[in-house]
Amino acid sequence: MTESDHDPGGDRDTDTQVTAAGSAALRLANVESADRNAALESIAGAVREREAEILEANAEDVAEAEAMLERGEYTQALVDRLKLDAAKLDDIASMVESVAEQDDPLGATLSARELDDGLELYRVAVPIGVVATVFESRPDALVQIAALALKSGNAVILKGGSEASESNRILYEVIREATDGRFETIPNGWAQLIEAHEAVDRLLELDEQVDLVMPRGSSEFVSYIQDNTQIPVLGHTEGVCHVYVDSEADLGMAEDVAFDAKVQYPAVCNAVETLLVNESVAADVLPGLVERYEEAGVEVRGDAATREVVDVGAATAEDWRTEYGDLELSVKLVGDVYEAVEHINENGSKHTESILTEDADTAETFMTGIDAASVFHNASTRFADGYRYGLGAEVGISTGKIHARGPVGLEGLTTYKYYLEGDGHLVASYSGADALPFTHAELDAEWTPGRRSGE
Amino acid sequence: MTESDHDPGGDRDTDTQVTAAGSAALRLANVESADRNAALESIAGAVREREAEILEANAEDVAEAEAMLERGEYTQALVDRLKLDAAKLDDIASMVESVAEQDDPLGATLSARELDDGLELYRVAVPIGVVATVFESRPDALVQIAALALKSGNAVILKGGSEASESNRILYEVIREATDGRFETIPNGWAQLIEAHEAVDRLLELDEQVDLVMPRGSSEFVSYIQDNTQIPVLGHTEGVCHVYVDSEADLGMAEDVAFDAKVQYPAVCNAVETLLVNESVAADVLPGLVERYEEAGVEVRGDAATREVVDVGAATAEDWRTEYGDLELSVKLVGDVYEAVEHINENGSKHTESILTEDADTAETFMTGIDAASVFHNASTRFADGYRYGLGAEVGISTGKIHARGPVGLEGLTTYKYYLEGDGHLVASYSGADALPFTHAELDAEWTPGRRSGE
Repeated sequence: MTESDHDPGGDRDTDTQVTAAGSAALRLANVESADRNAALESIAGAVREREAEILEANAEDVAEAEAMLERGEYTQALVDRLKLDAAKLDDIASMVESVAEQDDPLGATLSARELDDGLELYRVAVPIGVVATVFESRPDALVQIAALALKSGNAVILKGGSEASESNRILYEVIREATDGRFETIPNGWAQLIEAHEAVDRLLELDEQVDLVMPRGSSEFVSYIQDNTQIPVLGHTEGVCHVYVDSEADLGMAEDVAFDAKVQYPAVCNAVETLLVNESVAADVLPGLVERYEEAGVEVRGDAATREVVDVGAATAEDWRTEYGDLELSVKLVGDVYEAVEHINENGSKHTESILTEDADTAETFMTGIDAASVFHNASTRFADGYRYGLGAEVGISTGKIHARGPVGLEGLTTYKYYLEGDGHLVASYSGADALPFTHAELDAEWTPGRRSGE
Repeated sequence: MTESDHDPGGDRDTDTQVTAAGSAALRLANVESADRNAALESIAGAVREREAEILEANAEDVAEAEAMLERGEYTQALVDRLKLDAAKLDDIASMVESVAEQDDPLGATLSARELDDGLELYRVAVPIGVVATVFESRPDALVQIAALALKSGNAVILKGGSEASESNRILYEVIREATDGRFETIPNGWAQLIEAHEAVDRLLELDEQVDLVMPRGSSEFVSYIQDNTQIPVLGHTEGVCHVYVDSEADLGMAEDVAFDAKVQYPAVCNAVETLLVNESVAADVLPGLVERYEEAGVEVRGDAATREVVDVGAATAEDWRTEYGDLELSVKLVGDVYEAVEHINENGSKHTESILTEDADTAETFMTGIDAASVFHNASTRFADGYRYGLGAEVGISTGKIHARGPVGLEGLTTYKYYLEGDGHLVASYSGADALPFTHAELDAEWTPGRRSGE
């Protein structure tokens, strides 16, 4: 355990911070929605009020990053992501307000069942507890994750990249001062900032106390976190997405969707990396589409069959598994939808896959046959996103299958708790020769703490 | 990678078996409910038909275990758990039939939303994929897990204890022969048995191909699995459960519930380990209750305050965190419900906690203040069980908070998939200056593959 010189928690080390978050989580779990929303409004207000301070701190990070850029150690993209201005800060404050406006993810009775006369079981949505997030350069990530955690009643451990250390420190201070001691019910310490690199190593060891870790950053970064902790990880490691143009596709639509899926924003995980084309329509769709791609600066590579139709570079086996994250695309011809499904299940990353076809049965074969979080019919893979899905703010995108899959909203920051209301019921009564039967009747009731329905 | 001499898959090693399970999982995901149920009925029938063979194989395991018992290497309890007879085998067949009768956990549209005109998003329940189970001596665990996996459309990797190797091998053979090639839609290879100890080490490394591991056995065993794999683990590591007798408790009820929670079946994870008693009622409830416990053979230990009321041994700090799993109990006096909540959150294992009180507000303080999968009011902790909860067959009990919590039914073996039905929709239309808005209207529709609602 080591301490950062700048540890905003003072002398406390990572263990102490995580323990403090655990205590806060127990209290925050029972704070009313109105109070959590008031605290969020307070944070949004503070971000706007303290604009000058925040931009000043951010300017220090940016100056440092520009020096690194000149030495060739950082990219221009990193510097751009890092830089805040008045408009971006206003967007951050608005984002916090929009999180406050979301439906409360907590307290709903998810199911209710009578086990026997006077013995009632309720399943109720509750926060997960302590969630940690480890993120790279964008300082807005700190505010977004803190807001989502507060909205969902979770304590949060925040660890940002060193390139944004001044920005993260001031944003954390703004959040802390906007909530600590300002509301009777919001516990101090619900958000904790850790800074030292050694602190993150320690954090990843605390699987008994941290319930979930959400890394935000590159695929490599998420993989690194997954490989170094026993804490459940919510994130996506790769986005090798495909578009399949079927023999029965509307070819004009196919061209537009395939173009949108690559060019609209190539750096993101839901952009297409490999285009699969039914060999019967390759000569009709590929020449025009490849010309459009090349005009947009896309480097197209194809398998041997593709190169008989269009003049592009050669794709190797490695291309089929590569997330370019850039204006690059591989193309492969397939004989039918089954071959497309097989290629995708073998090479895809279970993120987002799309078929273009006017034949509903072929669409069904593709959609049910592929193992991926999102499977689309006649739509761009780029729709795979929490905001577009209508989930409100997005916690992240998961390529795992456990707990949450695909774009994850506030619901992904909740779990459930069983509450059983009885009247002195004993298991002995339901065991042995004279065992009473259970009624197991669904109840149409919300849980009222400490009371059975109708009481 | 090593191969067992008895590998029922022939020459195939663990990797090949896991790959085969992965291929089978993709096909099994789309098998109709009726076919999965027919395969389950076929398994139940085969278990009954091949009774003699199964009992013969089991007798070999039992003979070996009895020899180990004589050498003091096995316990009588282990030998008892291992032993099958005609009645137990009939119970196993009936269990498989009851799994077939459960509601289908697959295919339900969990939510449906219009994103924009003609662009419809559906969230549909699907199998997880490849689940693995590693279990100790009870051979019925193999059949139960295989049945639950088949019902929920998952391929399954089965690894039993070496003490039950003959029983597991014949039961696996019965399952395989009752399904392989017998149904047009059920893929061969959906269940795979691995036997060598080295094979389980290899299995735990295959986190890219195995989606979930469900260890069944002691807490230590589950911890071992959790410490040795990156695959998500569904299981419970500890059951340190509490009963709190409040000052406003019905003391007769409290005595009965506290007795039931310990004595009805002390070896299980939902039995109480520590009894917390409000000091204002300790003198009224403890003497009679401790007498009853001692008559039932329970060894009671108490803190100093308890020992001023009843003549029992001294409990140490270690007692508060110990899962006895036996006729042992620690008792501690507390000043109020807050102290009880604090003790439990500090020492409990987030499994099951119960309060005895007639005061609804105190019940609420306890139930919402405690972080545990199940929190009860005026009922025995022993009710925390999938069957009693009405979940049908139980996959396991989870003390984690991610994916599934508390007793887990077939739903815990499912995840979901997003299906998007469009008409050539592009993300570019929803971006930039002239961005179209999303409608995000809830749809009252089930997903019809390849079609939008109303088509």
